[in-house]
Amino acid sequence: MAGVWMQIAWVLVLCSVCLASLSENQDGVPLPLKAVTSSTQGSPWPMPQSITVMPVVYNLVGESQFMFTASKVQCDILDSAFKRYLGIIFFNKPRASKRPRHAPTHLRFRSAATELRGLNVAVEQPCPDYPQLESDESYSLTISDTSASLAATSVWGALRGLETFSQLIYDNEDGQLVINKTSITDFPRFSFRGYLVDTSRHFLSMSSIFKSLDAMAYNKFNVFHWHIVDDQSFPYESKAYPSLSRMNAYDQNHVYTRENVKAVIEYARLRGIRVMPEFDTPGHTQSWVSIPDLLTPCYSGTTPTGGYGPINPTIDANYDFLKIFFKEVVDLFPDHYVHMGGDEVSFSCWASNPAITDFMTQHQYGKNYSMLEQYYEQRLLDIMADLQTGYTVWQEIIDNQVKVRSDTVVHVWKGPYPSELANVTAKGYKTILSTPWYLNYISYGDDWRKYYVVEPTLFNGTDAQKKLVIGGEVCMWGEYVDSTNVIQRTWPRASAVGERLWSSVNVTSLDDASHRLVEQRCRMVKRGIQAEPIVGPNFCPYEYEE
Amino acid sequence: MAGVWMQIAWVLVLCSVCLASLSENQDGVPLPLKAVTSSTQGSPWPMPQSITVMPVVYNLVGESQFMFTASKVQCDILDSAFKRYLGIIFFNKPRASKRPRHAPTHLRFRSAATELRGLNVAVEQPCPDYPQLESDESYSLTISDTSASLAATSVWGALRGLETFSQLIYDNEDGQLVINKTSITDFPRFSFRGYLVDTSRHFLSMSSIFKSLDAMAYNKFNVFHWHIVDDQSFPYESKAYPSLSRMNAYDQNHVYTRENVKAVIEYARLRGIRVMPEFDTPGHTQSWVSIPDLLTPCYSGTTPTGGYGPINPTIDANYDFLKIFFKEVVDLFPDHYVHMGGDEVSFSCWASNPAITDFMTQHQYGKNYSMLEQYYEQRLLDIMADLQTGYTVWQEIIDNQVKVRSDTVVHVWKGPYPSELANVTAKGYKTILSTPWYLNYISYGDDWRKYYVVEPTLFNGTDAQKKLVIGGEVCMWGEYVDSTNVIQRTWPRASAVGERLWSSVNVTSLDDASHRLVEQRCRMVKRGIQAEPIVGPNFCPYEYEE
Repeated sequence: MAGVWMQIAWVLVLCSVCLASLSENQDGVPLPLKAVTSSTQGSPWPMPQSITVMPVVYNLVGESQFMFTASKVQCDILDSAFKRYLGIIFFNKPRASKRPRHAPTHLRFRSAATELRGLNVAVEQPCPDYPQLESDESYSLTISDTSASLAATSVWGALRGLETFSQLIYDNEDGQLVINKTSITDFPRFSFRGYLVDTSRHFLSMSSIFKSLDAMAYNKFNVFHWHIVDDQSFPYESKAYPSLSRMNAYDQNHVYTRENVKAVIEYARLRGIRVMPEFDTPGHTQSWVSIPDLLTPCYSGTTPTGGYGPINPTIDANYDFLKIFFKEVVDLFPDHYVHMGGDEVSFSCWASNPAITDFMTQHQYGKNYSMLEQYYEQRLLDIMADLQTGYTVWQEIIDNQVKVRSDTVVHVWKGPYPSELANVTAKGYKTILSTPWYLNYISYGDDWRKYYVVEPTLFNGTDAQKKLVIGGEVCMWGEYVDSTNVIQRTWPRASAVGERLWSSVNVTSLDDASHRLVEQRCRMVKRGIQAEPIVGPNFCPYEYEE
Repeated sequence: MAGVWMQIAWVLVLCSVCLASLSENQDGVPLPLKAVTSSTQGSPWPMPQSITVMPVVYNLVGESQFMFTASKVQCDILDSAFKRYLGIIFFNKPRASKRPRHAPTHLRFRSAATELRGLNVAVEQPCPDYPQLESDESYSLTISDTSASLAATSVWGALRGLETFSQLIYDNEDGQLVINKTSITDFPRFSFRGYLVDTSRHFLSMSSIFKSLDAMAYNKFNVFHWHIVDDQSFPYESKAYPSLSRMNAYDQNHVYTRENVKAVIEYARLRGIRVMPEFDTPGHTQSWVSIPDLLTPCYSGTTPTGGYGPINPTIDANYDFLKIFFKEVVDLFPDHYVHMGGDEVSFSCWASNPAITDFMTQHQYGKNYSMLEQYYEQRLLDIMADLQTGYTVWQEIIDNQVKVRSDTVVHVWKGPYPSELANVTAKGYKTILSTPWYLNYISYGDDWRKYYVVEPTLFNGTDAQKKLVIGGEVCMWGEYVDSTNVIQRTWPRASAVGERLWSSVNVTSLDDASHRLVEQRCRMVKRGIQAEPIVGPNFCPYEYEE
């Protein structure tokens, strides 16, 4: 953890910045603006595992002179990141005027003689294709009189370090870009830090997906969970079954083509983000109705109602469909994991259907429809195993005793989550937590605090069990969210979860976080992300402008 | 109210549109998308007082051929509106493909032989300068085989009619702009339909203020209540007292110059919107501290704490300041009404101050600090009366028995509001209601319903009292709102209030409103307003793209 210098240095950083939000009356006495939380400057979010900041600042040279260099590895991911971070660091939107200079001289930083002319990035492993659950994201970063260097085992760690480096840089009171003498050793506490979007209840434009991926990278999230289809619409363009989107996308402007999907995967890859698609079955499939006989016809007595229920598990041809469909999905999405859903299966339609009743009798399931659900899931997951792919499933699959691959990730979304985490990990499965992080449920005020205070390992279990908690995921279900508001509703509320999942278990101070979150919010705004204010009255040096 | 044709016509419009959100399975049977509320097409929001729509449609000619013409009046406001509405009506963003044609022939509208080649606008009164509380906003609109005409007493009514006209036009299934044979007679139920923004807790960019004014016009709001300064910051640039913003704006990029203010007033004027500024005193004035001796120094025993309370009402020089300051405000803002605030005055600092204690004794106020508040308000409002300006005040002024001008508008913001409305109107004052319409308090889901069902005249009082309820106002306080999210948080939730304040008391069906609100939301999105989804899963033909 951070040394003694960190304590001192942060105090200096904070006080220096407080003054930016003070004013002077006509007698020259600064008066605090009531109820305005001050912002840090150059403080990274999420907090690194170990950081030492010294009260020595270096001026950055101009954009044309500043150089990122890579040693040991040649990699398109790194080249692309260098270009991106040059744009971010040397953002040169004019401000109408400089802030007034109020900082008393005794609080001014001592400026070092040397300038920061670049950053050398050294990566051990060869250039990879795609990030994986097992990827190493650690890095170390040193900014001193003699060195400006970032070292990482993998390119993915280098990306995280570049993000941190960009966050250490700030405008001083003269409008000069500066960075403090700093030493950081960093790695994520959890390897799975996910963000779910739902493009079925409302469609999201490609530009808002790209912007979401940018914001994820700025907060060190690494899994884009794309809940791409659901009951309400089927915007995914299937090659083998084009009727799915042709018949049940909202309309043909609300479709993700295969090229769109590839563009999302590539954009994510360059930011070290995995794309995990979800095709939830056997429930949540009303929009799959264009496939003949796939869904269960519901009955009222002996008469079909015209309505449909979950996928009909009793028809063998449906498994042929699923095999072809998921083969295509596995071929298109490079990630090892596909999210298979499996939540909220309603039994009433199955129970109404005479053919299913016959099937239940034949298999001696009685009235136990969860046996039928198990039957379906087992056949589906066997298909996935044949495709040599891993899968993530909602917790019901495990609650209902379905046999799954040993590398399955179980997604906990119901409460009370401590007992569910204990249950899932007792069975030896890896798990990710979402229950407390359904950010689509909005509320008034500083609600980021309730997301921040969650501790995912706080349940009754052995150390081995706790190690099976590989992370968590923020969910932004789409009932009331589309491209008009998805960014604002997510950020910076999700940043609170980002820090919980990345930083040390000891980083828990809400007061400290509030000052840093003001900066992180404004940092995103400056970068074009419409992150909304959530720490009360305040302002950003660069406000959002369309 | 609407005739029999309206009933029939709406049914046809609704059904035709339902089909756009249906799909067909492979056997050609349309299946409803679960839980998706269908949208109307060409249905105006807010609902006019009387509307008859016939199942006859006219094609619009192309943009280059379409003509708005004015009879009887020459007016820059009208010229500007014609230009604006041409852009809105002939919005030509390409859609990737047309919607599939599913409408069975028996539901198709009969197309008339004639084309709609323009709209004639006849206005009785001469071209005005600025809208006023008393302005006439009525209009009548006829679209038939022989006529396309809009008639209004004033230009302000013509603006409302042009908005309605633009809303009647929709894309048919071939992508052709069409309008139904329609007859409308319309006027607002309430003359004051306001929207409050708060630029002190967070600054709002000029572009987000302009966009807010656009959205107001699209929903027939007519008062922009600009809560421009408060405790947290003073972004208003005063000519006489430049220290106010120089010292206590957040910084010098967070200031509205006099030119900015004039630009807002002009933008609003062209849309028939009054700009009512608020300078709240004697509380909510921490940011006024740069004026020497204006605020009350607080004491702990006999020692000043260094903190300040409300404006010090015991110093005569403070009234000289207020006279000069408000003279400037009245000169800059053309509206007859200035909002004088007067809410939430805390007495603890006054009570701690020895000089104020002496003053209380001299005036025989005892410990009754509301007498001191009355003393302040009376002197302030006498200044405003001398300036021959009207004012709006928060309800506390009346609750505390301050003597006010007879044309004062009393702003009710606390609950229970029926008894407060009864109280204020019993005293003979005009009143506007905000209590149930604090839209800054967000909640999950279709919360527009609770705003929609409010009936402002539902209180114990005579008919004469009810006539004193001149309208209402949606409030968007700025603690958690800035340019990143002000539009999304307000719209289309405020649209619900817009209809309540414009339409007939009998327009109360939530189900009917939900379908029309889907269209109104998408209409705003098409026009570049990031109005968020609030009627559950859905889509817009033209989604929001940055």
